[in-house]
Amino acid sequence: MRSHYCGQLNETLVDQTVTLCGWVHRRRDHGGVIFLDMRDRDGIAQVVVDPDTAEAFATADRARSEYVLRIQGRVRLRPEGTQNPNMPTGMVEVLAKEVDVLNTAATPPFQLDEHGKVGEEVRLKHRYIDLRRPEMIEKLRLRSRITHSVRAFLEGQGFLDIETPILTRATPEGARDYLVPSRTHAGSFFALPQSPQLFKQLLMVSGLDRYYQIARCFRDEDLRADRQPEFTQIDIEASFVDEDDIMAITESMVRQLFRDVLAVDLPEFPRMPYAEAMNRFGSDKPDLRIPLELTDVDDLMQRVDFKVFSGPANADDGRVAALKVPGGAKLSRKEIDEYTRFVGIYGAKGLAWIKVNERARGLEGLQSPIVKFMEEVVEELLDRLGAEDGDIIFFGADKARIVNEAIGALRVRLGEDLDLYTRRWAPLWVVDFPMFEDDGSARMQALHHPFTAPSCDVEALKANPIAALSRAYDMVLNGTELGGGSIRIHEPVMQRAVLEVLGIDEHEAREKFGFLLDALQYGAPPHGGLAFGLDRLVMLMTGARTIREVIAFPKTQSAACLMTDAPGEVSGEQLRELNIRLRQKAKAEGAGD
Amino acid sequence: MRSHYCGQLNETLVDQTVTLCGWVHRRRDHGGVIFLDMRDRDGIAQVVVDPDTAEAFATADRARSEYVLRIQGRVRLRPEGTQNPNMPTGMVEVLAKEVDVLNTAATPPFQLDEHGKVGEEVRLKHRYIDLRRPEMIEKLRLRSRITHSVRAFLEGQGFLDIETPILTRATPEGARDYLVPSRTHAGSFFALPQSPQLFKQLLMVSGLDRYYQIARCFRDEDLRADRQPEFTQIDIEASFVDEDDIMAITESMVRQLFRDVLAVDLPEFPRMPYAEAMNRFGSDKPDLRIPLELTDVDDLMQRVDFKVFSGPANADDGRVAALKVPGGAKLSRKEIDEYTRFVGIYGAKGLAWIKVNERARGLEGLQSPIVKFMEEVVEELLDRLGAEDGDIIFFGADKARIVNEAIGALRVRLGEDLDLYTRRWAPLWVVDFPMFEDDGSARMQALHHPFTAPSCDVEALKANPIAALSRAYDMVLNGTELGGGSIRIHEPVMQRAVLEVLGIDEHEAREKFGFLLDALQYGAPPHGGLAFGLDRLVMLMTGARTIREVIAFPKTQSAACLMTDAPGEVSGEQLRELNIRLRQKAKAEGAGD
Repeated sequence: MRSHYCGQLNETLVDQTVTLCGWVHRRRDHGGVIFLDMRDRDGIAQVVVDPDTAEAFATADRARSEYVLRIQGRVRLRPEGTQNPNMPTGMVEVLAKEVDVLNTAATPPFQLDEHGKVGEEVRLKHRYIDLRRPEMIEKLRLRSRITHSVRAFLEGQGFLDIETPILTRATPEGARDYLVPSRTHAGSFFALPQSPQLFKQLLMVSGLDRYYQIARCFRDEDLRADRQPEFTQIDIEASFVDEDDIMAITESMVRQLFRDVLAVDLPEFPRMPYAEAMNRFGSDKPDLRIPLELTDVDDLMQRVDFKVFSGPANADDGRVAALKVPGGAKLSRKEIDEYTRFVGIYGAKGLAWIKVNERARGLEGLQSPIVKFMEEVVEELLDRLGAEDGDIIFFGADKARIVNEAIGALRVRLGEDLDLYTRRWAPLWVVDFPMFEDDGSARMQALHHPFTAPSCDVEALKANPIAALSRAYDMVLNGTELGGGSIRIHEPVMQRAVLEVLGIDEHEAREKFGFLLDALQYGAPPHGGLAFGLDRLVMLMTGARTIREVIAFPKTQSAACLMTDAPGEVSGEQLRELNIRLRQKAKAEGAGD
Repeated sequence: MRSHYCGQLNETLVDQTVTLCGWVHRRRDHGGVIFLDMRDRDGIAQVVVDPDTAEAFATADRARSEYVLRIQGRVRLRPEGTQNPNMPTGMVEVLAKEVDVLNTAATPPFQLDEHGKVGEEVRLKHRYIDLRRPEMIEKLRLRSRITHSVRAFLEGQGFLDIETPILTRATPEGARDYLVPSRTHAGSFFALPQSPQLFKQLLMVSGLDRYYQIARCFRDEDLRADRQPEFTQIDIEASFVDEDDIMAITESMVRQLFRDVLAVDLPEFPRMPYAEAMNRFGSDKPDLRIPLELTDVDDLMQRVDFKVFSGPANADDGRVAALKVPGGAKLSRKEIDEYTRFVGIYGAKGLAWIKVNERARGLEGLQSPIVKFMEEVVEELLDRLGAEDGDIIFFGADKARIVNEAIGALRVRLGEDLDLYTRRWAPLWVVDFPMFEDDGSARMQALHHPFTAPSCDVEALKANPIAALSRAYDMVLNGTELGGGSIRIHEPVMQRAVLEVLGIDEHEAREKFGFLLDALQYGAPPHGGLAFGLDRLVMLMTGARTIREVIAFPKTQSAACLMTDAPGEVSGEQLRELNIRLRQKAKAEGAGD
């Protein structure tokens, strides 16, 4: 039906006859001639329709925005002065001989060029129009190239693409499951998987050796923070490996991916223990593009009389950390107030600061609401931080968890606001995570999941669980966790010990994942893996602002699809077949029983 | 952790030290020496552990079936007379230096070699053991190679891999949907997609131009006939194409796939109109490996006095068809009785037959319970069929639908029973399907789906819908429908006309797929596509007997997973959150409210 995509036209085709199919992106009438910007997946080409070709001209004259046309014509150089070097096809145009209307179009709910003028709701409702925008097509194209590159790499490494069930049993990941009532087993429900974790471990028990899947996963959570109820995971597992093997394979994979798709050579991935990441960056996914670090000043602040600082500095679970921002002394009072509000989101009760205006003048050269409370340690403090004129120093003093979250977030915010980035891409591995965290509840919590292997033996684990480190690893890029994984427990005795620490008794364990515990008894190999969040990876690589931009048909924050109007009502007959009824009847007819 | 897979060992490695990891497949003690058959994903290698290496021997002596071992040793040629040329590694063995137990194994619920002795239930419950069987691993490996080949082909043709939602709105495919209650929209439900049909059409409206997805689909149907509640589809759609384009692309894809994976060059795919397929083979997915055909004999039977034949022969919706089976005269009375029972499944009230013992002897040479009723046409009949001595001729006489189903099925059954296959692979395209079928209900039914384009214009369609043909095409291989598709309707006026014929009024149409009708108004390109059933394709290519053999974690006929025990009960709290309650409480505690 066509000879070329619109975006393929260039000078090498001059004088050739081409056939294009696409949409009228823009139409202009100029000097008695019709100019059509024809758009398809690959780009935009300018078509000129002259009144000399009467039939074509009459057809083109009917064409409106977003009409679907087929155009045959001759490629020619654009006249001197009308060339557009910023456009891939900008040196040439097509002089139309034939114009056919393949389909008409009603006036679209918004013009593609003016999508910014309508709210996201309108665009999501008419997603099929919104996806016509070249930048949206480009994002989906890049997403496809990304999965293709990942698959090619993994296939080359002997990983088998194996599908695991979507209709399955509630998984032990902890978030809320989506449930599917069973018609054939009245009163029973399938759950949609939060990840294929247990299945991929079982595949290792089966000897499949190397598994991968680009797997759809589901979480029925409140959709704060740009999440989607269904998301996609690059899921990987291998047998007879240790953490170095998995990290080496997946690091190569990501490096290859960036070369393939973005022509970017990523730097080496440093490895950073969890404790160091928390200490230096207040985060287990530090953004290393930002050259700011938290500095511990507990020892200094233990000596001051200022309770707000000396209290946390002396407390077991407290921390006082300083964040030096070069050039930050120019921040206005209003800006500092905004940052104070910002750290409040993370629970900080305030944000102390010192502006270093002129260090040579001693205390006189400092500006700060708090420096008077710590005069005796100020010099030592400034020395430790290497403070220079023009810097500002922020402080967090609270429970360590709050300080890390608040000052860690402030660090990232300042990096963005002040554009402190030193490089485009900053990957790293975070390792040596604690096995458990004590969140104050009755049970200890697994920092990853209950199948993560500890790096100590059973005795050490039982003796001091809170000190135990795990064999888990997270890949972090630019402050985003791209993926996480671990070496798994393959010995039943260790699995039982970990469940015991987590306060999961035999009955609960059997109920939730008895089949995995069974499987471990029949000869499970040492194994481990990793899962990448594909949506977030694509978002980072395409520079998208929300995850909704890299998903063809996303849902809103309230987990609805505005285009299809899902979820929707169902008939009473359907509910009866599923052995369920609604607690409150829905408003419209048809639903309920 | 290892240097080679077990299956990689061969003579080129003699005298090299290798490290293997895997499972104890068999253990034999012979002449004071331990022989271990070590198994991994790639194959089985023989390991010899000599008492001279005392530590290794002691460890090997502890090893039982399915223990996980790591073995280091030297490759050597097996002694003369103990070589096994039927095994890829059968010329060599490994003389162990070190043996480590990576994990022990309880006695498995069944021995891999003896899987046939336990029922499928036991194997499905312990699927992780069952998947250890080399033939199961091989099937999953082939499945992975199949999807990889398909993806590589489609990517090379410019198709973009685009994910469509799993949590979506009820689709108009007609089968029962799986439903997912929404927590955030009380009383509303998502449906799991029966296919991505509407989404892929919308992607074409968006100008994505070429889409593919290996997509999970769901149908909550009663699982007769070897089906699964979730299945996988190779889903393809393209714009600015006609049926020849889609058939050419997908035929190339399948041809490439068979070359890549099976090293098979498929023959050309003939195209056969639906009417011809029904007439000659009684089926719209004829198995062309079998050289038997139905022959119309209505004109002859109209003349006989035998009402059982002359009735259908004279009826508008009747048919009398003959099936000649060369060499079939040797079938016993018992076998013929079995075939009579068999056609009864399809509604046939009997199975008339004529054995041609000795044509030269005229009526004398025939053996048949019915020939006496049609003496006047017998010669003409035998001539038309080219009957020869030793043949049997079966007859179907009933409504055409019953004759086609019954004699069509008998033809396939005879092909199998008598091993009449003339070749290994027999592909074809079936085309020119009717748009609609009149199944006797109030509404006309779409033979494919309501978005399939007819090959006539709107006026012709409205004037005589039952005569209208569609632009649909099915790819058939060895009597199995591998995939089906069509050119879709891209013009709103045609879509309205088809919905009108189907008796779907404006309100119902808007309710079910209003967003598609909207989209067609905003400039839909001509487009079409095809969907392959991946599970069935893999089954054909691997020679599996059931679809469950080519799915890692399949469900039973009652849509349950015996391994995870899904579906399962859920807590009252979960149900309350979803705004639903059970109609009857489930038996165990915890469920209901």
